[in-house]
Amino acid sequence: MSPVVPSSTATVALRTLPMSASRLAGGFWAPRLANNRAAIPVVYERLVEAGHIRNLRIAAGEESGVVEGAAFRDSDVYKWLEAVAWAGADAGALPRTIAAAQRPDGYLNSVIQVRGDEPYTQLWMSHEHYCAGHLFQAAVAAARASGDTELLGVATRLADHLAATFGPHGRTELDGHPLVEMALVELHRQTGEPRYLDLARHFVDSRGYGRATKPGFDPSHYGDPAHYADAEPVREAGTLSGHAVRAVYFAAGATDVAIETGDTDLLAAVRRQFDAVARRKQHVTGGVGARWDGEAFGDDHELPPDRAYAESCAAIGMLQWAWRLLLATGEARYADQIELLLYNAVLPAVSLTGTEFFYVNTLQRRTGARGDVQRSPAHGRRPWFNCACCPPNVLRTLASLPAYLATGTAGGLQIHQYAPGSVTAAGLAVDVDTAYPWDERVVLTVRAAPPREVELALRVPEWADRSTLDGKPVTGGAYTRVRRVFRPGERLVLELPMPPRRIVPGERVDALRGCVAIARGPLVYAVEQPDQPPGVTLEDIRIDPAAPIKPERRPHLLGGVTVLRTGDTTLIPYFAWANRGLHAMRVWIPEASE
Amino acid sequence: MSPVVPSSTATVALRTLPMSASRLAGGFWAPRLANNRAAIPVVYERLVEAGHIRNLRIAAGEESGVVEGAAFRDSDVYKWLEAVAWAGADAGALPRTIAAAQRPDGYLNSVIQVRGDEPYTQLWMSHEHYCAGHLFQAAVAAARASGDTELLGVATRLADHLAATFGPHGRTELDGHPLVEMALVELHRQTGEPRYLDLARHFVDSRGYGRATKPGFDPSHYGDPAHYADAEPVREAGTLSGHAVRAVYFAAGATDVAIETGDTDLLAAVRRQFDAVARRKQHVTGGVGARWDGEAFGDDHELPPDRAYAESCAAIGMLQWAWRLLLATGEARYADQIELLLYNAVLPAVSLTGTEFFYVNTLQRRTGARGDVQRSPAHGRRPWFNCACCPPNVLRTLASLPAYLATGTAGGLQIHQYAPGSVTAAGLAVDVDTAYPWDERVVLTVRAAPPREVELALRVPEWADRSTLDGKPVTGGAYTRVRRVFRPGERLVLELPMPPRRIVPGERVDALRGCVAIARGPLVYAVEQPDQPPGVTLEDIRIDPAAPIKPERRPHLLGGVTVLRTGDTTLIPYFAWANRGLHAMRVWIPEASE
Repeated sequence: MSPVVPSSTATVALRTLPMSASRLAGGFWAPRLANNRAAIPVVYERLVEAGHIRNLRIAAGEESGVVEGAAFRDSDVYKWLEAVAWAGADAGALPRTIAAAQRPDGYLNSVIQVRGDEPYTQLWMSHEHYCAGHLFQAAVAAARASGDTELLGVATRLADHLAATFGPHGRTELDGHPLVEMALVELHRQTGEPRYLDLARHFVDSRGYGRATKPGFDPSHYGDPAHYADAEPVREAGTLSGHAVRAVYFAAGATDVAIETGDTDLLAAVRRQFDAVARRKQHVTGGVGARWDGEAFGDDHELPPDRAYAESCAAIGMLQWAWRLLLATGEARYADQIELLLYNAVLPAVSLTGTEFFYVNTLQRRTGARGDVQRSPAHGRRPWFNCACCPPNVLRTLASLPAYLATGTAGGLQIHQYAPGSVTAAGLAVDVDTAYPWDERVVLTVRAAPPREVELALRVPEWADRSTLDGKPVTGGAYTRVRRVFRPGERLVLELPMPPRRIVPGERVDALRGCVAIARGPLVYAVEQPDQPPGVTLEDIRIDPAAPIKPERRPHLLGGVTVLRTGDTTLIPYFAWANRGLHAMRVWIPEASE
Repeated sequence: MSPVVPSSTATVALRTLPMSASRLAGGFWAPRLANNRAAIPVVYERLVEAGHIRNLRIAAGEESGVVEGAAFRDSDVYKWLEAVAWAGADAGALPRTIAAAQRPDGYLNSVIQVRGDEPYTQLWMSHEHYCAGHLFQAAVAAARASGDTELLGVATRLADHLAATFGPHGRTELDGHPLVEMALVELHRQTGEPRYLDLARHFVDSRGYGRATKPGFDPSHYGDPAHYADAEPVREAGTLSGHAVRAVYFAAGATDVAIETGDTDLLAAVRRQFDAVARRKQHVTGGVGARWDGEAFGDDHELPPDRAYAESCAAIGMLQWAWRLLLATGEARYADQIELLLYNAVLPAVSLTGTEFFYVNTLQRRTGARGDVQRSPAHGRRPWFNCACCPPNVLRTLASLPAYLATGTAGGLQIHQYAPGSVTAAGLAVDVDTAYPWDERVVLTVRAAPPREVELALRVPEWADRSTLDGKPVTGGAYTRVRRVFRPGERLVLELPMPPRRIVPGERVDALRGCVAIARGPLVYAVEQPDQPPGVTLEDIRIDPAAPIKPERRPHLLGGVTVLRTGDTTLIPYFAWANRGLHAMRVWIPEASE
């Protein structure tokens, strides 16, 4: 099975497929997923080196010594374990260590335990619930991916401890960093235990009243309830603000609760918020977060390309949220968002090698840029971070990528993302052959079909004007649906024309006035210094609005990309930048004045 | 005497006048200085309330209790004392308390002493040198303004302790926050003690080698040597980067050392840096600092109006630096900078009442803005800050403002800033009558003159095209010089025409593309919501490049201002914004496309 498997009673339009029902073969993604799988032991070594594994081994009594770092470090290990599960890799002795580290009463946090701190007394910064949530997600992944329930036992014991401690009749403080909401719902889905869903609903409904906020007056962003997604009750908020990762994780968790409990008001609230973010607080790449200070959303229309925060984890959170909204509603716009995010917000966070990561995904790096040594685009992708949330988060997300390709219903199969391989639902098995996103043609061959009418729904991306299915025009930004009795061997040809297109920023986006971004198909492009003619400084490039933009296949550049050329300027896919050393780059390019 | 009085042997083109030689009477500044003086007891009460005074009283044994806050808090008290000195106000018992708090060996820092911490072991964050520097400046101000040398005794004992502890033959660590360099030079000027100048020169020359930087690896801006003005030796740096206040304070101190030691290489270096900042890192208001993260300069051309940091203290540092460069060179561009900074970077930091302050001076506040509760423009000017550097800094700067109006040489008087009152140098006493900056006419009447040729130099601002002196054209961006035997009673009329003008941002300033700023005379203007027609949202205002811009006197608006009107849009002087509650505002306004 896959991440996010709503219960049979959940209010959803679409159903997640088992991971085995979506198979990738070659094309754009398969080699990247292979790199991602190969990075799993590399990242493990970094977790060892940074002391994360040792903390847990000390708590388990397997080593002696002093724990290091923040209490929320355990979460990075759990994210790595989730990646292991989805990738079918080997977790080694780690689950046993974690089980051994758990207290007899179910509580588990290596740093808090070994330091002898009182549990749950600094939730605004310790993030013990957040760590628990990542453990739940890893445990659910292991159970779904391979049937291994060792971690699930640890997870339920910890969840029971949480449920016994917190709730309407218990303690009411909340974790400063949401995540546990999504994870409790998933654990409920996996175990059937209603208390986990109840606790998730409690956490969702009791947020927005200052219970997650750092106590005492702090004039910086640490004193702002929005930093903890705690400024407004979720049902009242019109948009997201404050710390971007926290806000989107919380919204995704609220969406899970809405789905599981059939809470249409709550679903309407999070849909409204998603829409507000997509319209006014999302970078053209799909990334979110406009302020370094507090890693936060900016005000509406505050989208600076050079100081875009666009944290990798925030993009992942947006992806998780969009996926839940897609399941809930079946609306193509959420699948469009997933496409945008995968190619232009999640993928750029990792190097072509799969081993170096961006924490902050800038949309512009100036010639001679400088900034802090870890997060700044001045320093390129890095093997690790002091706060190491992003690398294992990218790892687990790419490992679970096949889950996001398609869904099923009793009556049909919906294909949301195009990649070569095969997908199966409702008895309909389809082979997909495509060089997408480089090429517009998607050939679908029915491999098996039930002897009854079923529906094959194919997403036509919003950007895909003049698309056709078997030569007949289909509408972008919607699913084109074929309902009939399919025969094994029959072929459907979807053409999603990808002429390069100019994206003009909204009138109110001050930071982008006079600039255009260029995209082709699902890919946002960028100019990077190495591709420009000698003597041209990146800052001096201007895009002539009248000049044609031509795609050109470059099989040996950056692992094989299609570049775009306009005048003397060459653009590469944004995701591929910063793989040839440190250079100036920009996504939004000034237009030449007429 | 005034702040910054170079020694007789110093290499300067111009000489500071005694405070008594510049008198303000009415006009634009006198009522603001009266408000500033009236704010002195108000700010004292805030120092009491915040615990600053108590820390010193505890250290003095006058109270018992626990000291509160960071070690650098003492500096806020010293800045307040400097304001008291320049304003001729009453310091009360505070100098005695400070003297009593000083250790017998000369060391002085209330927090470090009472906590029993080892002095000078956390200089990167304790800022004991910085505190000492502010004490030196206050002591020098008291001695110069009223002859009161009580604090000067404390200052020299502390300076002696510093000189005995640090230097080429002593400890080599540096304070994380420069300031002591300027202050040691001033103390040297006041006392004649060469060791203070030697120590200042040592501090200037040994910076840039990591001796001021937080020890150990920190991946945030706290680990970046630039945060401590410590990334490059001053003689090698081409521009400023990192924490803006620290960088400009250090540059001003290096300028003092260059002046006092006749170090032309050092002077050339800081002039080059000033030029680089003015061309590529300064907001149109004169403010500097583009990043909230680390309160830092951005990269070249990184000048976001909405996230401008433009800390009040950084503007004050720029003013101090420009003043020193003006004394050193006599070049009009530095006096132009002082004008720009006074009206558009220092003055906006304080409310019309003189009692509420901005820490961050944004150039744009959006409708519905949000941000942290203290520094953010979302919350307007505040009575106080957790880190309270800005309020007493504004106080001392405005209190010393008359010092910046004019200078003297053996052969003449130079008037740099125009305000009604009188100035005297080289035996030439001139009364100035003007409604500047609202009106273009400056009438100068000779009140007394020596019976020999002297030179009267009048700055013609760089923005002042078509200016005239007694009807004859004079050139902007330079001094117009009249050298003759003046007669008491004779009048000179300087006309500095102030048609409203459009300022177009540089092609490389991405954040401002397609926008214009509007200025008149020395004042930068802004649109604020309350002045716009009903139904017009500030974000929708567009400036028609072809429409005329007309000044209109509004005697009852904002204490009396000249507004500018173009189309339906009304602009107010930027300094006056945020005095009518919290509203949207912007300095850079999109131009209507043709």
